[in-house]
Amino acid sequence: MSDTAANIIEQMGQKAQAARPALAKATSAQKDKALHAAAQALREMKDDIKTANREDMHLGREKGLSPAMLDRLALDDDRIDAIALALEAITELEDPVGVIEAAWDRPNGLNIARIRVPLGVIGVIYESRPNVTADAGALCLKSGNAVILRGGSESAHSSKAIHQALVQGLRTAGLPEDAIQLVPTQDRAAVGAMLTRPDLIDIIVPRGGKSLVARVQNEARVPVIAHLDGNNHIYIDKSADKDKAIAVALNAKMRRTGICGAMETLLVHKDVMDAILPALFAALKAKGCTIRGDARTQALDSSIETASEEDWCTEYLDAILAVKTVGNLDEALAHIDTYGSGHTDAIMAQDEETLAQFLNHVDSAIVMANASTQFADGGEFGMGAEIGISTGRLHARGPVGLEQLTTYKYVVRGDGQTRP
Amino acid sequence: MSDTAANIIEQMGQKAQAARPALAKATSAQKDKALHAAAQALREMKDDIKTANREDMHLGREKGLSPAMLDRLALDDDRIDAIALALEAITELEDPVGVIEAAWDRPNGLNIARIRVPLGVIGVIYESRPNVTADAGALCLKSGNAVILRGGSESAHSSKAIHQALVQGLRTAGLPEDAIQLVPTQDRAAVGAMLTRPDLIDIIVPRGGKSLVARVQNEARVPVIAHLDGNNHIYIDKSADKDKAIAVALNAKMRRTGICGAMETLLVHKDVMDAILPALFAALKAKGCTIRGDARTQALDSSIETASEEDWCTEYLDAILAVKTVGNLDEALAHIDTYGSGHTDAIMAQDEETLAQFLNHVDSAIVMANASTQFADGGEFGMGAEIGISTGRLHARGPVGLEQLTTYKYVVRGDGQTRP
Repeated sequence: MSDTAANIIEQMGQKAQAARPALAKATSAQKDKALHAAAQALREMKDDIKTANREDMHLGREKGLSPAMLDRLALDDDRIDAIALALEAITELEDPVGVIEAAWDRPNGLNIARIRVPLGVIGVIYESRPNVTADAGALCLKSGNAVILRGGSESAHSSKAIHQALVQGLRTAGLPEDAIQLVPTQDRAAVGAMLTRPDLIDIIVPRGGKSLVARVQNEARVPVIAHLDGNNHIYIDKSADKDKAIAVALNAKMRRTGICGAMETLLVHKDVMDAILPALFAALKAKGCTIRGDARTQALDSSIETASEEDWCTEYLDAILAVKTVGNLDEALAHIDTYGSGHTDAIMAQDEETLAQFLNHVDSAIVMANASTQFADGGEFGMGAEIGISTGRLHARGPVGLEQLTTYKYVVRGDGQTRP
Repeated sequence: MSDTAANIIEQMGQKAQAARPALAKATSAQKDKALHAAAQALREMKDDIKTANREDMHLGREKGLSPAMLDRLALDDDRIDAIALALEAITELEDPVGVIEAAWDRPNGLNIARIRVPLGVIGVIYESRPNVTADAGALCLKSGNAVILRGGSESAHSSKAIHQALVQGLRTAGLPEDAIQLVPTQDRAAVGAMLTRPDLIDIIVPRGGKSLVARVQNEARVPVIAHLDGNNHIYIDKSADKDKAIAVALNAKMRRTGICGAMETLLVHKDVMDAILPALFAALKAKGCTIRGDARTQALDSSIETASEEDWCTEYLDAILAVKTVGNLDEALAHIDTYGSGHTDAIMAQDEETLAQFLNHVDSAIVMANASTQFADGGEFGMGAEIGISTGRLHARGPVGLEQLTTYKYVVRGDGQTRP
């Protein structure tokens, strides 16, 4: 590990720790004031942000970034407005800090309360989308945490400009500027340093592709909240409503193929394959989807490619769908047990007994009945905003919103009680 | 890592994973039946257990275990009865699995519920107390988890005998015998293997001294729930009720000196030291407590040893108390911020403003007002039983009971909704 990068993280971590008590005590009004002021600063600094973004775009083109990556990177007036609006939307969310989750009295007169408090210092490691700088910074701030942001090199200039606006907001609200820090170096050793300092950083949230998340999970000595894969399934049962099954499967695959809630494998009960698959395949193909299937689906449509073992394991994040027919619910459950990644799995069925079996058995962060897997999203869940989705079982599972960025402490009040 | 130990853990982990779905589906009645049957088996197998325990005691004496360790290891009829009663007490606790924590409807008609589910497979690594075999096994079972128990070599025979009773209980209830497994080897490499298989074990709970917990925290690639230190403080404010402050401080230090909730450092406002410390010191000394203090306490009582920097950092777990006088609340808070271990810290005060400042500021798992730190215990909190106390901020904080041994999943029910 480079000394310089390690030193930078050490100093940033110390500053974050120093900011921690002031953040924990900050009122909702103060945090919201900082977010409103940051939104205003973003709008006022639009030209600076666009200039910085042009620099990133120029370097990105020179590096040969794909059109999709360049599009994710690009900022214009509308996108900057959207970032500002997202900050303002976070002011509307309920502040979890200080919420009394439970309180009870003991026979000896002790009163015990479980109260939400911030986690402390959060490290966010992300890739090219510059808006994550604002979103992640704002979510951590509203939940009372200090945050150390480490953006990708592709968006370094844009992130720096956006970060200026966030700092302006903190200043206006009288909150410590070190509440939201941006790692100034693109040295990859800085990531390594963040991952190995549990004394300075309480939790790491990686936001990015599988290689980033895998690296973080492998190297981290700090707890990580993330998902590696969203290898999501829909099982169409023989009791499914045919039209709904087709519409939901089409939406789950094709609405946006690159998001973690997209369906990757479709399981279909053999008794309804004839009634459902021809129309569904036609609709998928019309939208440019490639289909890879098992022998029974190929018998139905000879243009379908052969699905291999690898297909059942793959999160395509693309217009490709693996399709397997099953003889019964148990076969579908066994397939999901074997190949699922614990993110989001859904069933299309009208039979209540079958629905209950599926929803009880499948041990994923999100299980759905008769709805598109693309609803796997904190916003769609009504949580307002999310910093990511977790497939881990500890601390937070599914969408990670403000509440999941906090922990609790017990406050016990007595009147001189001693333990017998 | 020894191949043998790694292979044993690999096989046990696979068996635990295989038992997992059946445990997740087990009803409360079934789990309680297993616990009742295990309690009965413990009573019926008393002679076998005592014979096994005599073997452990014999080996312990040969190894030169301290009287305190031998006492922790010893089992007699009463202690075996107590273990059986503890199993039965766990049947009385509410089963967290399946509890709907929250449910709400979205404007598009989706119904979202957050439901408690087991964590999966729990690894418990503990030292000489053989009753942990039963307690930890029962708590994991009741919370629907498979458990791999790794007891200390000192209690190997006793733990094996107790484990037999637990397996008898599982058998009677028709639950998988692999739900509660005991590592059969004392090879220390087995611990290493448990700590590095997040694919097989979801969480590790170490129960034992600081060196065990430190080893586990340093080596683990599996999330760990534990506390390293309970360096707990009581601050006696100038507004404290004098008699209550003396009684609580005496109890917090001397009721049991070896538990993690014991007070280790006393902070006293200088304005009340003359009124409180002489009587408190006399009471502490009468119970055999050594006192180490700062210059002001020594001026009060010349027999007091000088407290060093190391004393402020030390969890004695013994009849020793460090005492420091402070000029105001802020000095007390600063001391706790610097030296506290985030376990349990308490204030004795009558002034509401001072109480609020202390309870808000101190960022420990448990903060107390006007009560003994020895109440830091799941049983005393009304949680029925605990597998340990956590000073970590993620997932579980404070006493770790049945609910903290579970996670949640989201169940989403729709009627064919697609995401726009």
